[in-house]
Amino acid sequence: MSAPEDHRVDWIGVDWGTTHMRLYAFDANDRIVASCDDGPGMNAIAPHEFATALAGLVGRVCAEDTIPPVLMCGMVGSRQGWAEATYLNLPVRLDDIAAKAVTIPIDAPFSEVRILPGIAKRDPNAPDVVRGEETQALGYAATHGSGDATLCMPGTHSKWLRLSGDTVTGVRTFMTGELFALLAERSILRHSVTAEAFDMDAFIGGVHDGAEARSAVLSHLFALRAGHLLFDQHAERQRARLSGLLIGAELAAALPQAHSETIAVIGGAPLTALYGDALGALGRRAYVHDGNAMVATGLAHAYRRSKVLARRAS
Amino acid sequence: MSAPEDHRVDWIGVDWGTTHMRLYAFDANDRIVASCDDGPGMNAIAPHEFATALAGLVGRVCAEDTIPPVLMCGMVGSRQGWAEATYLNLPVRLDDIAAKAVTIPIDAPFSEVRILPGIAKRDPNAPDVVRGEETQALGYAATHGSGDATLCMPGTHSKWLRLSGDTVTGVRTFMTGELFALLAERSILRHSVTAEAFDMDAFIGGVHDGAEARSAVLSHLFALRAGHLLFDQHAERQRARLSGLLIGAELAAALPQAHSETIAVIGGAPLTALYGDALGALGRRAYVHDGNAMVATGLAHAYRRSKVLARRAS
Repeated sequence: MSAPEDHRVDWIGVDWGTTHMRLYAFDANDRIVASCDDGPGMNAIAPHEFATALAGLVGRVCAEDTIPPVLMCGMVGSRQGWAEATYLNLPVRLDDIAAKAVTIPIDAPFSEVRILPGIAKRDPNAPDVVRGEETQALGYAATHGSGDATLCMPGTHSKWLRLSGDTVTGVRTFMTGELFALLAERSILRHSVTAEAFDMDAFIGGVHDGAEARSAVLSHLFALRAGHLLFDQHAERQRARLSGLLIGAELAAALPQAHSETIAVIGGAPLTALYGDALGALGRRAYVHDGNAMVATGLAHAYRRSKVLARRAS
Repeated sequence: MSAPEDHRVDWIGVDWGTTHMRLYAFDANDRIVASCDDGPGMNAIAPHEFATALAGLVGRVCAEDTIPPVLMCGMVGSRQGWAEATYLNLPVRLDDIAAKAVTIPIDAPFSEVRILPGIAKRDPNAPDVVRGEETQALGYAATHGSGDATLCMPGTHSKWLRLSGDTVTGVRTFMTGELFALLAERSILRHSVTAEAFDMDAFIGGVHDGAEARSAVLSHLFALRAGHLLFDQHAERQRARLSGLLIGAELAAALPQAHSETIAVIGGAPLTALYGDALGALGRRAYVHDGNAMVATGLAHAYRRSKVLARRAS
């Protein structure tokens, strides 16, 4: 947590996910004057505790009696969250995300609390949803201008968003991070991948093998165990190769639908760097952006946009 | 457990795996006269308890003071098992499996205890190992004659063995069953696949989608969750589709290396039936065989073969 500066807090932006909560205090010029990143994730609190948890965190960055307007994004807007901000259906104009924010009925000391909606792809044969990543896309477009772009947001669930001008035209989710964790921690491979060190050559080799056609990943997994048994292949090699295989398979499935030669990889280190290396190995250029910065920028963009819309409406 | 019949127990065959132990008492004509399938798996006993556990189970099928010869297969022969029966390297002649059984030094009331070796593919780029399945392959060849065959043995780890005449020329392992369990029980999909019923149409659809090229599986998994959220797609559909996706991906990777038009699926119901249906959907013919019967037949074949070899050597 950073302490409040001399700039007055004008409004509060919150990225509230399943396992984390990050809060940003903005001044009237949308500069971040204070922040904290250790708020409780949705998993850690009961449904009736949202308001208390939010007020508590706001108290650490802002001493006003009345809490300034709050704009939130992420799983806090899901059906299991504080209040449901119904998904917008693809294609989604970026401006509509701010316009469709849901206002939570709430008493003092709060003044206004709103949640941005996620995006849904309502195709019964390939349904998909994102919540929070749409705000990162807003931040990306705000800083890079509109235009065609492919955004890759790696994590527990890796999200790919396709931007066409000022419109999100595609979303796609890969369970890459969750699969890695399950295999590395709970499968028979757990005995073969116990390492902190990371063998980059093995990672890149895994990327190439994972990216090959014909569901290569499934056929390569057990070899990590067998290679450990037969050749004493080291844990740092096996762990890196497992990561490479899964990321390679994700990229092979996602890249044919990317409509830009370069990929914007948005998230946290070191995962974004790994995705950058993997994309490089497959002949693509990657630009890496900090995910938290993108969320904060996206929240600010949405907040200003909604103020403009509110003025127009009144 | 079935009670001893009037046939005298001539020898004992044991399939001793990580989570199960099946024991068969054979008469001098290799007919099964008694059996039990509730012995403790390797996971359930300490290393020094193997002899006691075996003697205890033998006592239920055989009243002799001296325990007849015992021939075992499975993980009991691994480094973490009772005694290591070193893997044979591909290619492996079926007769060599019996010839290379390892004898455990052991006192009365045991007379002779031996373990059949597994098979290793010592290719550092695609290493693989099997233990127990080689005995099923022995059983298959004993009942179907030598010839080219592709054996598929589904389970936690699905094993594919390639038989060329009297020689095992290929082994390949897919972690399909373990992946299904991890995804269905421990991933975010667990909320979407809680069902006992099984939607066969969804399974076959999953097989086709999973068998498609370009690592289709990874891109289809999260859709099971999103389909549940957006379309209330039912758990029995999602569970069956998850199973189909993983099995389809396995088949797509394994079938190009199958050198027979028909596939012998060896294992237990209902999994073998599912694999049969999946193979049918992909235009292959499958013949389903009971895995336990194959192991018993394989043990009997190996036992007789080793007696012939012993007579020749003496």
